[in-house]
Amino acid sequence: MEIKFKPIGVVHSPVKKKGTHRSGPHREHPPVKGELEIYKDYENGLKDVDGFSHLYVIFAFHKSSDSSLYAYPPSDRQKRGVFATRSPHRPNPVGLTIVKLIHRQKNILQVEGLDMIEGTPILDLKPYLNGDVKTDIQTGWLSNQK
Amino acid sequence: MEIKFKPIGVVHSPVKKKGTHRSGPHREHPPVKGELEIYKDYENGLKDVDGFSHLYVIFAFHKSSDSSLYAYPPSDRQKRGVFATRSPHRPNPVGLTIVKLIHRQKNILQVEGLDMIEGTPILDLKPYLNGDVKTDIQTGWLSNQK
Repeated sequence: MEIKFKPIGVVHSPVKKKGTHRSGPHREHPPVKGELEIYKDYENGLKDVDGFSHLYVIFAFHKSSDSSLYAYPPSDRQKRGVFATRSPHRPNPVGLTIVKLIHRQKNILQVEGLDMIEGTPILDLKPYLNGDVKTDIQTGWLSNQK
Repeated sequence: MEIKFKPIGVVHSPVKKKGTHRSGPHREHPPVKGELEIYKDYENGLKDVDGFSHLYVIFAFHKSSDSSLYAYPPSDRQKRGVFATRSPHRPNPVGLTIVKLIHRQKNILQVEGLDMIEGTPILDLKPYLNGDVKTDIQTGWLSNQK
């Protein structure tokens, strides 16, 4: 069984090459600004998006040619199960980032909090909802890190 | 350009048919319990997952045969841009749900907060991190609803 997706847009980021952006728990400090260009065919789907302060971006790690069940996160360099990390080298190279929506002009969203590189294919956008704010969370191997 | 993914597992949910589960802002009340069965080939990737209280599940809306740029959410039945909703009828039928991890036994995760139906293909799991807790959020057309 294979599931096929197509890009609905592309990330424009000041980060041009993989491996040069911050990752791990610090990845949003300082926040990286850039644009989400949604292709014209999908622009109508952006109606009402403006009212949301934060959006999930689901994207493809298009430069990840390898996949592993383990990752060695930069923050501790220990062997971790890949599903306990945000590593780009995963069985399915799909990424998830929450961005802050600064401004929308037609099919272009100016956002903050990017950790994707220039040219990253966007697969979906979803609004960040009140129910997504979880309290009393535990973050496993990350809980001893700031 | 086409991006191909393969299921890494399957959702086991008491909800058997689409359209019978709650959706929208109330979708997590009361929380639905069920299991995420990760296929044996990927079980090693679950190492260290146990320590996290919440996980993102990225999945395929495998029963969504149609796609639209608009949605009419059950909570207000007004026409909304699909990217401002969590509608299953999207350009790419990819879904995102945060579940609470209750217990892991080998390749089976017992979770709470499911809103997927039985048999939903799982594409990825990611840990919910401290940085995913956003404050001072605005939720657009949903902000007048509880």
